[in-house]
Amino acid sequence: MSVPYLINGPNGHIPASEKIPVIARPFVSERAKKTLDLVERFVEEECIPADAVFAQQTGQGTVARFDAHPKVIEDLKAKAKKLGLWNMFLPKNHFKEGAGFSNLEYGLMAEYLGKSVTASEATNCAAPDTGNMEVVAKYGTEEQKKQWLGALLNGEIRSAFLMTEPQVASSDATNIELDMKKDGDYWILNGQKWWSSGAGDRRCKLYIVMGKSDPSNPNKHKQQSVILVSADTPGITIERMLSVMGFDDAPHGHGHITFKNVRVHKSNMVLGEGRGFEVVQGRLGPGRIHHAMRSVGSAERALEYFLARLNDPAKKPFGKQLFEHGIMLERVARSRIEIDASRLAVLNAAIKIDQSNAKDALKEISEVKVQVPQMLLDVLDRAIQAYGGAGVSQDTPLAQMWSSGRTMRIVDGPDEVHMLQLGRNENKRGPSLLKRIEAQKAKTRELLKFYGLQEKDVLELKRVSPGSKL
Amino acid sequence: MSVPYLINGPNGHIPASEKIPVIARPFVSERAKKTLDLVERFVEEECIPADAVFAQQTGQGTVARFDAHPKVIEDLKAKAKKLGLWNMFLPKNHFKEGAGFSNLEYGLMAEYLGKSVTASEATNCAAPDTGNMEVVAKYGTEEQKKQWLGALLNGEIRSAFLMTEPQVASSDATNIELDMKKDGDYWILNGQKWWSSGAGDRRCKLYIVMGKSDPSNPNKHKQQSVILVSADTPGITIERMLSVMGFDDAPHGHGHITFKNVRVHKSNMVLGEGRGFEVVQGRLGPGRIHHAMRSVGSAERALEYFLARLNDPAKKPFGKQLFEHGIMLERVARSRIEIDASRLAVLNAAIKIDQSNAKDALKEISEVKVQVPQMLLDVLDRAIQAYGGAGVSQDTPLAQMWSSGRTMRIVDGPDEVHMLQLGRNENKRGPSLLKRIEAQKAKTRELLKFYGLQEKDVLELKRVSPGSKL
Amino acid sequence: MSVPYLINGPNGHIPASEKIPVIARPFVSERAKKTLDLVERFVEEECIPADAVFAQQTGQGTVARFDAHPKVIEDLKAKAKKLGLWNMFLPKNHFKEGAGFSNLEYGLMAEYLGKSVTASEATNCAAPDTGNMEVVAKYGTEEQKKQWLGALLNGEIRSAFLMTEPQVASSDATNIELDMKKDGDYWILNGQKWWSSGAGDRRCKLYIVMGKSDPSNPNKHKQQSVILVSADTPGITIERMLSVMGFDDAPHGHGHITFKNVRVHKSNMVLGEGRGFEVVQGRLGPGRIHHAMRSVGSAERALEYFLARLNDPAKKPFGKQLFEHGIMLERVARSRIEIDASRLAVLNAAIKIDQSNAKDALKEISEVKVQVPQMLLDVLDRAIQAYGGAGVSQDTPLAQMWSSGRTMRIVDGPDEVHMLQLGRNENKRGPSLLKRIEAQKAKTRELLKFYGLQEKDVLELKRVSPGSKL
Amino acid sequence: MSVPYLINGPNGHIPASEKIPVIARPFVSERAKKTLDLVERFVEEECIPADAVFAQQTGQGTVARFDAHPKVIEDLKAKAKKLGLWNMFLPKNHFKEGAGFSNLEYGLMAEYLGKSVTASEATNCAAPDTGNMEVVAKYGTEEQKKQWLGALLNGEIRSAFLMTEPQVASSDATNIELDMKKDGDYWILNGQKWWSSGAGDRRCKLYIVMGKSDPSNPNKHKQQSVILVSADTPGITIERMLSVMGFDDAPHGHGHITFKNVRVHKSNMVLGEGRGFEVVQGRLGPGRIHHAMRSVGSAERALEYFLARLNDPAKKPFGKQLFEHGIMLERVARSRIEIDASRLAVLNAAIKIDQSNAKDALKEISEVKVQVPQMLLDVLDRAIQAYGGAGVSQDTPLAQMWSSGRTMRIVDGPDEVHMLQLGRNENKRGPSLLKRIEAQKAKTRELLKFYGLQEKDVLELKRVSPGSKL
Repeated sequence: MSVPYLINGPNGHIPASEKIPVIARPFVSERAKKTLDLVERFVEEECIPADAVFAQQTGQGTVARFDAHPKVIEDLKAKAKKLGLWNMFLPKNHFKEGAGFSNLEYGLMAEYLGKSVTASEATNCAAPDTGNMEVVAKYGTEEQKKQWLGALLNGEIRSAFLMTEPQVASSDATNIELDMKKDGDYWILNGQKWWSSGAGDRRCKLYIVMGKSDPSNPNKHKQQSVILVSADTPGITIERMLSVMGFDDAPHGHGHITFKNVRVHKSNMVLGEGRGFEVVQGRLGPGRIHHAMRSVGSAERALEYFLARLNDPAKKPFGKQLFEHGIMLERVARSRIEIDASRLAVLNAAIKIDQSNAKDALKEISEVKVQVPQMLLDVLDRAIQAYGGAGVSQDTPLAQMWSSGRTMRIVDGPDEVHMLQLGRNENKRGPSLLKRIEAQKAKTRELLKFYGLQEKDVLELKRVSPGSKL
Repeated sequence: MSVPYLINGPNGHIPASEKIPVIARPFVSERAKKTLDLVERFVEEECIPADAVFAQQTGQGTVARFDAHPKVIEDLKAKAKKLGLWNMFLPKNHFKEGAGFSNLEYGLMAEYLGKSVTASEATNCAAPDTGNMEVVAKYGTEEQKKQWLGALLNGEIRSAFLMTEPQVASSDATNIELDMKKDGDYWILNGQKWWSSGAGDRRCKLYIVMGKSDPSNPNKHKQQSVILVSADTPGITIERMLSVMGFDDAPHGHGHITFKNVRVHKSNMVLGEGRGFEVVQGRLGPGRIHHAMRSVGSAERALEYFLARLNDPAKKPFGKQLFEHGIMLERVARSRIEIDASRLAVLNAAIKIDQSNAKDALKEISEVKVQVPQMLLDVLDRAIQAYGGAGVSQDTPLAQMWSSGRTMRIVDGPDEVHMLQLGRNENKRGPSLLKRIEAQKAKTRELLKFYGLQEKDVLELKRVSPGSKL
Repeated sequence: MSVPYLINGPNGHIPASEKIPVIARPFVSERAKKTLDLVERFVEEECIPADAVFAQQTGQGTVARFDAHPKVIEDLKAKAKKLGLWNMFLPKNHFKEGAGFSNLEYGLMAEYLGKSVTASEATNCAAPDTGNMEVVAKYGTEEQKKQWLGALLNGEIRSAFLMTEPQVASSDATNIELDMKKDGDYWILNGQKWWSSGAGDRRCKLYIVMGKSDPSNPNKHKQQSVILVSADTPGITIERMLSVMGFDDAPHGHGHITFKNVRVHKSNMVLGEGRGFEVVQGRLGPGRIHHAMRSVGSAERALEYFLARLNDPAKKPFGKQLFEHGIMLERVARSRIEIDASRLAVLNAAIKIDQSNAKDALKEISEVKVQVPQMLLDVLDRAIQAYGGAGVSQDTPLAQMWSSGRTMRIVDGPDEVHMLQLGRNENKRGPSLLKRIEAQKAKTRELLKFYGLQEKDVLELKRVSPGSKL
Repeated sequence: MSVPYLINGPNGHIPASEKIPVIARPFVSERAKKTLDLVERFVEEECIPADAVFAQQTGQGTVARFDAHPKVIEDLKAKAKKLGLWNMFLPKNHFKEGAGFSNLEYGLMAEYLGKSVTASEATNCAAPDTGNMEVVAKYGTEEQKKQWLGALLNGEIRSAFLMTEPQVASSDATNIELDMKKDGDYWILNGQKWWSSGAGDRRCKLYIVMGKSDPSNPNKHKQQSVILVSADTPGITIERMLSVMGFDDAPHGHGHITFKNVRVHKSNMVLGEGRGFEVVQGRLGPGRIHHAMRSVGSAERALEYFLARLNDPAKKPFGKQLFEHGIMLERVARSRIEIDASRLAVLNAAIKIDQSNAKDALKEISEVKVQVPQMLLDVLDRAIQAYGGAGVSQDTPLAQMWSSGRTMRIVDGPDEVHMLQLGRNENKRGPSLLKRIEAQKAKTRELLKFYGLQEKDVLELKRVSPGSKL
């Protein structure tokens, strides 16, 4: 494909592999670098141009948009497979089914995938399938794998993870209450789920559902189970789709789904009764890194749009091009700083997962979960403002990116929950720090004595009965 | 020394070397790790307790405070030398005189030095001597080295870098105008300098002075020279010291100095006439990293104080300890996130310098120059607020740390200058990005044609003479 | 209508008239207070419940949504007229056609109108008709008034103001280039306009169009003219509608319109050839106040939703209701502070217009133009975050309010333009302030002499040849 | 005095009385306007030039600085008395002893007093004497008034309010524990106080002390009493003074004071045993408005310095004067917006107090208590940054102003306490708002039925067993 796509410096294009932060380079294999460059080209030359085609093939009409299956995505998938850009997300140290990259290496690729609406699905690296495939591959029985994993890994079907419920505060997952009752060899499911992302797509065949199977268990984290449910099971109804800051995200979409006496055979249980929390927690870690790196890529694209606007010769308010306005350059610089710092935080978290596991990287993951979406929104806001009316309209991808970015502050736990957890963990150091500071003060007193000095305040001003003399 | 100092986790102390971010570990030698742990112990057990002693030995009185030479600092220096903690800042790949660490490795140590007022000087790693030693070692003649370098490396004398001038906007160094005129084998210096940091100290014997030696040179960056000036040269007068947000930083201090017909032999010229900019730019890079890492350490210490306060059983407003107030934990979390992201950015910049040089790491250095001090001030502000009155007073180190932190947004170029430079460099990508986006749109049009679709806007609504029919 | 609607305090409902800030009360007539209370009831009891009906009657489908004319709006208009809530926006001191209120009084009412999607149109106080009616009433010929003003004042037709153009930086209106050429008694218009808000509505019959009629006039502010154009004039085409952060705002909408050889009789010129800037500037002042006060109302409604969520007994993350989380109360407090300060700023600006005119209130208007939308977005963001998924979805009005709020930072001039103008005006004081500070310093020197003191710096520390003695 | 002082516009000086926001004018008498203009001239022409003299007369040395009594302040007091600028703070509707102005009118004057270090004391309007005089005048017995009030009103002595204690979280005043025990006709006081502002001054003769007189009272707000204590009572010792972000605020200062068996006759009790909270709350309201308006004045002065710098012809970084850098103008504009909005909020609160009392104005007072200091710090930060090194040094008043501003976020209750209280009060509306929103939704359902529509979601998409067909 033609060269001009990738020109982005005064001296020609610098490939993605050369832009890896120096601190991360020891963790990237030569093979991953080559793939990374391929991902960049695929995204810039194939996926981004296809995004608008995808939108147009999705069409119009509430129902029709969700029934649509844009042809372009299948063509992209075929190209991606041919290029070997497929299932890069499955980390090599845990799964044999993937492309053999580490979380860090995939993280670098995910940044580029995040620049396009179609790129993640085109490479079979789209949420929530990625996490769902990890669940089945990691915790699934052979039978479960046989039924679902191949089709998912092959991009033939899609899946949804059904956790959040509208009637409770599901930011605290112990509140989840979809009823699971045993009836012989079956579980009977009753309740409702929303924010079932991906459920709009006609190809979404598998629901991974969290429910309450043992409500009276004294351990609040043992009351839940996770079960695999075929989307065509009788009793399941998609009632409506949810919009996200005005966008319907069709055909993928976010479903509001009811369960009415839905019978699921017990062989579909994942990991075992009462182990829902275990499944959920194992699933979330890498997924958050993927989201975060895609968000870094979105931010880079927003900055690219911002820079393009600043240099658009047609846009000259008050006789100067936009880049001649110092305040615009200051915003560019701030964006550059924030994006670069965020990327490093995500890569560090990815390495932590690679070297141990998501549980050990809890702090690092929570940090980027909070930091990155806010950064993305800030960068987007500056770009939007530089575009004026065009920035909020359909004429740039910025508005839709903002919509996705905003939800990132809510999905997989709102900022507040992560902050509270981070704050609590950090606070555990408090008592020992109090002791340390006291010990240091005691040492100071010893030293003062050693030097023949009295403890004395810098503003020592002894006045006895101070008002007595003027 | 006793153990309690370093307890800071629920399960005892985690040494500094184990807290190195995973992403940075491949760059740290075993020897550096050991030294790092030693630095931590030295700072926590020796330097921090000595800080208050240092303050008290500095004493009272405008003149007396600058004449003071606190005994404790020499004792600390002796201990540090004995421990091998000396001149760690001189990067191994450029200087044979140092302790043999990389910028990255020293950066990790500098974080701990930044937790104490005395630690940097105690290990002969204090600014501005560090940068000044680099200048003499890198650009100095053998004679210059003989005269100054040994004494500096040995911690016998101190030095100042005289660049900024009160009467001009010296954030733009081409404005600097201290007059340098040749008179036979001598340069005659006339003018004034301020923010000559370190000049207050009686042991400050060497001034490295930037002046204008060739004002009519058409190249604005060739008009300046840098020259070594002995502080006892006749014609030099310290007129006064400058305060920093209320603090005098004695005995170190920040001098306002006048030069009246100061004669300096031409053999003191550094690098050559008209090469002042070269010297200055070579000097600033690593120094900014040192500042930044010390600031990260300051922020960690601020957070430690914050956490100690939250767990002080005596502080129970409204019946709850401070850590039970969710807003405090949220601020702890935000601080944790910001500190960790900043550290990674600084370490990445240090590695960039290590692998190439400061000039190539310009972007990375500018980024942390802006990012880190703002982060430090934010963390400090939260800690101060948690302490209330104690936070602004002399009873915690927070107020003085804030004062230093605030100046970091100004010294070595104010935020605005770095942002402008960053913005301008980033903006160079603009025209090619504009072209790329256009090329991607052209590709979209091709694809639409391929799929038999017409270019159509999502909100296409053709109405001709729209008011004609209702 | 039933009481429960308006209960909003522990002791029952406090009517709007009693919540007027004390500082504004001297400016509000008894009649306005009564009308204000009526507006509040009408909005809370009639309009807000009708908002969802309006949305449903607008229906689905790109074209159909703009062709729709929701029945409920006409019913609301009939009710409003009957209650005397009609055309309150036309300020009494300039227009005899309105309801006889001042800008301040209407401003108070506009706050309540801003809480509902339908309320402004229901009372014939909707933008852009309000500004357009002002233009025709103020600058129109008798003939122009006869043709358009009655129908507009009566709510029979709607109108659009066509200024912004896609191909230029129209934040600087001198860039506007729709071509107007004279041809006998006619003007021939060629060019395109976008963000023609309201143009989607089938009832939009009048376009007030700004174009360039005298491109070679040396005075850049005399090149433009404003002309009234009937929407059914041949050569006009609505090409498409623009979306706003994902919303289409149908049936009102924002049009992208082309003009191809559109012939308009010269009798439609407003105020006179070359006086376009005059018309535009006269139009914008009060409109910005209306927008600002409606935004204050939106913010109040967002806060109401926020508070309702905090007290929803079904939402108990981590065992506590949301209002028991201190961070939520802190955000409520911050919102309260910001809303109240913004309201005062808007009311002060309105009074300034009332007592003089919009031109004299330029500073005050620019201030609220910038301040209020940012405040609204901040309040909305907090409310959205408290609602989690529901906050970004269609289940609360918050997402759509955010979309509108975001555009407020762009329409009628982006923040940056207003800030620059404000900054420049304020900067005019600079030279005289420099002089004043110098004069004050001179006086200080006189006083020091008077008291027998020498000018002395607080950190005076005279050291001659400072390095000479230790 | 000479004219140049007050020139601050391109067309000459606009007197303070003409700059009163239009919305506040109905509340200002002609006499107050005249006095306001006089205050402005007195501050600009007499006090500001005297500030540096005051500093120099305070001199050097920890003890000496607090023993100093700068002559210039007495000369200013004499001038102020002659001009009738004396005790303007005592509100006319509550006290006959003052100058006869309302809180609003004095508020306008306080803004100008806030521009100078000496102006408040020069006009006998300095904290904490103002609040202390109010306490004695309002709650004092005739005997108490005779002993203290005259001397205070006459500016002969000064006073301190001793409330905060170092060992508890005194942001919650119920924690205060200075022990008061009855012994016949005497109270015996034991304990310690800090942040006793003004106690450094040799002329500070009266301490108003809050202590715990009834620790076992079940009502936590009845355990405290307030008592008048002569500063020369045996057993009182000033142990040291506290610094504020590096400044000692001498000779005024902030004392750390111990009480050891201090005997005070029961006739000195204020209002009655156990009524301490009542006294404290009555005292704080207007004082917070005074602080807030002085802070507005400080912010105006910071902006004046900022503007002066922008126009200093000597400061030309990168070939442009500072005002030519757009980012500087943007910061000026932002400062202008924030100052103006803050002023209106303070004035509105003052009127609320005037029309009722401080208790009824609790919300308004809390709002400005939080809003104004943050605004002041933001404006100061921008000005400091524009000055670079000069901004943090003693060469501008900015650093000291920042120090005072920072403490304003802590004194009289830290931000967090006020926010919590504001949030809680606002939250009381929550349950009724929840009901209202429910009622509005019910009405919507009625309307839908009326129009023959079914309740339908905008993204209704019924799919039963959705996976069954592709």
